[in-house]
Amino acid sequence: MQHCIATVSLSGTLPEKLEAIAAAGFQGVEIFENDLLYFDGSPRDVRRLCQELGLQIMLFQPFRDFEGCRRDRLQHNLERAERKFELMHELGTDRILVCSNVQPDVIRDNAVLADDLHQLAELAARHEVLVGYEALAWGQHVNSYRQVWDIVKTVDHPNLGVILDSFHTLSIKDDLSRLTEIPGDKIVFLQLADAPILNMDVLEWSRHFRCFPGQGEFDLPAFLGPILQSGYQGPLSLEIFNDGFRAAPTGGTAADGRRGLLYLEESTRARLAASAEPSAAAVLPQLFVPAPQPQYDGVEFLEFAVDEAAASRLARWFGKLGFAHAGQHKSKSVNLYRQGGINLILNSEPDSFAHAFFVAHGPSLCASAFRVNDSAQALQRAKQYRARSFESRVGPNERQIPAVRAPDGSLQYLVDPGADGSSIYQSDFDMLPGAAGKQGLLTGIDHFALGLPEETMDAWMLFFRAVYGFKAENEHVLPDPYGLVKSRVLHSPDGSIRIPLNISENRNTAIARSVSTYRGSGVQHIAFATDDIFAAVAAARESGVPLLEIPRNYYDDLAARFDLPDEFVASLAAANILYDRDAQGGEMLHVYTAQFEDRFFFELLQRRAGYQQYGAANVAVRLAAQAQSRARQQARSNWYD
Amino acid sequence: MQHCIATVSLSGTLPEKLEAIAAAGFQGVEIFENDLLYFDGSPRDVRRLCQELGLQIMLFQPFRDFEGCRRDRLQHNLERAERKFELMHELGTDRILVCSNVQPDVIRDNAVLADDLHQLAELAARHEVLVGYEALAWGQHVNSYRQVWDIVKTVDHPNLGVILDSFHTLSIKDDLSRLTEIPGDKIVFLQLADAPILNMDVLEWSRHFRCFPGQGEFDLPAFLGPILQSGYQGPLSLEIFNDGFRAAPTGGTAADGRRGLLYLEESTRARLAASAEPSAAAVLPQLFVPAPQPQYDGVEFLEFAVDEAAASRLARWFGKLGFAHAGQHKSKSVNLYRQGGINLILNSEPDSFAHAFFVAHGPSLCASAFRVNDSAQALQRAKQYRARSFESRVGPNERQIPAVRAPDGSLQYLVDPGADGSSIYQSDFDMLPGAAGKQGLLTGIDHFALGLPEETMDAWMLFFRAVYGFKAENEHVLPDPYGLVKSRVLHSPDGSIRIPLNISENRNTAIARSVSTYRGSGVQHIAFATDDIFAAVAAARESGVPLLEIPRNYYDDLAARFDLPDEFVASLAAANILYDRDAQGGEMLHVYTAQFEDRFFFELLQRRAGYQQYGAANVAVRLAAQAQSRARQQARSNWYD
Repeated sequence: MQHCIATVSLSGTLPEKLEAIAAAGFQGVEIFENDLLYFDGSPRDVRRLCQELGLQIMLFQPFRDFEGCRRDRLQHNLERAERKFELMHELGTDRILVCSNVQPDVIRDNAVLADDLHQLAELAARHEVLVGYEALAWGQHVNSYRQVWDIVKTVDHPNLGVILDSFHTLSIKDDLSRLTEIPGDKIVFLQLADAPILNMDVLEWSRHFRCFPGQGEFDLPAFLGPILQSGYQGPLSLEIFNDGFRAAPTGGTAADGRRGLLYLEESTRARLAASAEPSAAAVLPQLFVPAPQPQYDGVEFLEFAVDEAAASRLARWFGKLGFAHAGQHKSKSVNLYRQGGINLILNSEPDSFAHAFFVAHGPSLCASAFRVNDSAQALQRAKQYRARSFESRVGPNERQIPAVRAPDGSLQYLVDPGADGSSIYQSDFDMLPGAAGKQGLLTGIDHFALGLPEETMDAWMLFFRAVYGFKAENEHVLPDPYGLVKSRVLHSPDGSIRIPLNISENRNTAIARSVSTYRGSGVQHIAFATDDIFAAVAAARESGVPLLEIPRNYYDDLAARFDLPDEFVASLAAANILYDRDAQGGEMLHVYTAQFEDRFFFELLQRRAGYQQYGAANVAVRLAAQAQSRARQQARSNWYD
Repeated sequence: MQHCIATVSLSGTLPEKLEAIAAAGFQGVEIFENDLLYFDGSPRDVRRLCQELGLQIMLFQPFRDFEGCRRDRLQHNLERAERKFELMHELGTDRILVCSNVQPDVIRDNAVLADDLHQLAELAARHEVLVGYEALAWGQHVNSYRQVWDIVKTVDHPNLGVILDSFHTLSIKDDLSRLTEIPGDKIVFLQLADAPILNMDVLEWSRHFRCFPGQGEFDLPAFLGPILQSGYQGPLSLEIFNDGFRAAPTGGTAADGRRGLLYLEESTRARLAASAEPSAAAVLPQLFVPAPQPQYDGVEFLEFAVDEAAASRLARWFGKLGFAHAGQHKSKSVNLYRQGGINLILNSEPDSFAHAFFVAHGPSLCASAFRVNDSAQALQRAKQYRARSFESRVGPNERQIPAVRAPDGSLQYLVDPGADGSSIYQSDFDMLPGAAGKQGLLTGIDHFALGLPEETMDAWMLFFRAVYGFKAENEHVLPDPYGLVKSRVLHSPDGSIRIPLNISENRNTAIARSVSTYRGSGVQHIAFATDDIFAAVAAARESGVPLLEIPRNYYDDLAARFDLPDEFVASLAAANILYDRDAQGGEMLHVYTAQFEDRFFFELLQRRAGYQQYGAANVAVRLAAQAQSRARQQARSNWYD
């Protein structure tokens, strides 16, 4: 389908917005009136600029407080409309959005509203434009598309139709059953916005918290499906008022918007494909259908960008945590460390992607690899969702692994079992005596958490949902001693890959300082699964891994909260193990290491009896303990020396 | 009265919080349980630390979800309480806050709740502690102090009383009439929080948007007055959950909290003093009473910190705007410029306060002077509100003008007519032939606007309300092309001094870039009043002042919006004058200059027919025009060369 976006959705000046919209591949644009008012050029200049960029101006908006106004204002309002119609000719667009009147003195009589809109439609006919009437969720009298449709039916004029907007309908939990009543050709335009579910004033919610499809929590396919079934074939258009987008780089936001519409098409297609109605089947060919989502089987490896010195320091951490040096790359300064099913790679190859990453961000996670059933298909899907792919230089007989750029520029490799059953390491690495890896106490990567610049969370959400089909869990708000942190987990549908994403709006939290030091996102911690946390802690201590010390008061409270045997609490306290229990009796026992150079840390974690969370209740004590230990740590020499 | 604050109100580790609380002059502290849990030391360590700091631990809080729980949990809950009572002994405090149960399965039977609380009170009696029962606004069954009081009366136990919290009562617009029913000695504790009026979920509102008295919009005297009348003589305590405070420097926040409680005492005293009830009069002696608020008579002068080069550049701007060089300081490199009633000072004296300000912030407004009826009294009041005063070095026969440090460290001079009727300039300046100043087209300082770091807005609000008795107008949210800007005006009660304060949460707005470049707050623009805007614009153009060019589209829309004669709109457009009209027909006509070195700009402004606003509707077009002209301006040579 054709894609369109309102200029108000993006930051910048009008020319900056239009260029970004064209670059993202939209076919059209809604000109938001204020963007035109503030533009230092004529409407014809805007028309010319759009033409040069290959953009069609699909809508001019909004026209406010027209219908049902004080009777002595009607003539003025019609003259005001006529000025806008003339302006639309200069812009070269034939559609205008009229939103329902929000003035307290509006006349609450549908016959009067219909009569006013009939006059407007007559005027529109003379100017050869189409008026679309839209219900604002906070309209004074008209606030539902159902009222709008009743009035438009009454007026019954070829130059008047309906404009639908998902926010105004879904925010008030409006009855969707009458959407199919509206014939597609009476829908002048269709605006789409997602949003987080917030229990707040709907006007404020709309003005500040809208987001792109796939970034929020609305059931947009339930809205779009019936509209398409009724025969609407016009563009899908984004109208997003979002404080973050107003301030974010224009190009990236526009690209996200495009991806959001593609994702919405795929989601809606899936919903309609499951329907038995012939009108649903008829719509399917119009809708975007990318390659299917991969099936996942956990994290194949994590790769760190380091230099020689950092490689040696980090390798010592790995050793103390029970990893064996399992392989050495045949042609590059790249080494593999292994324990159980966990593969960790240190990449200090000069003149490589990893090196560039190291120069920009210091020692950091530069790549992760997901095990998928079909890597070619997974890559195809990613490209269809406009993700950038990456091809590394490979030596002779080395294997090219498909890779995608994450929103922060790091890599996500897609690794499948391969036709010949060979591992990806066999072709590229000289495997060492310890190649099988220790069958140690750590069995797998439970999750790895990233710290992000706060304004990028929405982009990551959409990227993982669309490109990979991941699911997002609920957000947690957690107190760092120096501000609040927001955390949200993305996981593959089977749960084998879990990635908590953390942001902070406050400058001095650990997350924000890390983002600032790293100059961008970066790994915050890596959690290794174990089947015996007490043994794992004992082994780690034995080999000299420093663990984060947990205040004794935490354990006193734990005993009061969970009614645990005193000996058990004492054993937790002795090992600095944190504890959580869910409502079903599932338990999590976990311990944190000290920080690797104030950058990231490791977690050892045991889940019992089906516990599925991440111990959010313990994050605050961890953050406080980290803050308290930071000064001490900095004063001490590094523990591995 | 005694002042107290909950540790949760501040950022930092527990020792950092306690030190800041003591330094701000509080007598006591509420220990928020999580701060204790996360603290790397025992409860006795906390007790010792507080003793060293001269702080009394006045309350331990909170104890949750106790009463009306599932019957098989009651015994566990009592044991849980007993552990906390023991902990309170170690802390050395005898009061605990029990907040109303929020669990969905709470038993909704006041007899059961009373019975549970009776058991708790009996246990408390054995441990010699007092339990205060508080209604959370989102309590599952108990959510009003009125229910709490009914239950506490039923229990009728010396170890059980009521805890009142202004947020929980005012947020739900609860009936205040029963506050006086509660005898003062049954009020175990009193928590005070202000908040902006937000139409949102009350739990979210409470957790993120509370603020100190004088920073929000609650009518706190209406809450506190009756409580004092009923005989409560315990401490006034702040319990503030605020995302900004969690991230702000600890010491400054604590000092603001103290100022807020003093302000609340003064405001409540004023309310009670107006009451005829004897119980109101009886309370007055307990309450803070500072020197009265000054009467104002406009801005006496504005002073800029500059070096010699910047002084010369800015002096040329003043000249072109019609100012005369009116005086030269007798002993310092300080010059006075004058037009009508406007005095502008350029201070390039080395080794002075202004010089330090210039070094830190570049060319900037370092001082403003308010005309008051009694400067000594005004200074006394400021000191009573814990503002820092400032004494400049003066030469022989020079006059010492009382001054106060604003929240950003700039100065606010307090100038009164003086006993001998001499002007403040006569003693310090050699007045020049133009000393009378031009009787030009600019007649006064209408307002001067500051750009602030976003997290400092609350502090400025409280400072101006408490120290100066200024009033705050409603906040406006305005779109900059690169993010949103929030603007709020403070004005003296008579309206003769008006100071719009602007903040932005987004990094790339003009305000945020200025704050970042300036390293702190700074003047954004100065608006000069005129009685003839067209003549003022003509004169400014004549002398070569560059005005901000306004897009023609703005004027096309203006004509449509306001139904103005075409010739009038054309004359506005020709002069780049912006126009606004209020509902009463008051009009504002105003024009902006280009930026002085991308720092600040000037506004020429005419108010007609009682217009009292600031043309907020025109700010967006100004911001867009400034963004569009920035690139052009940077390319051009400076206009004054």
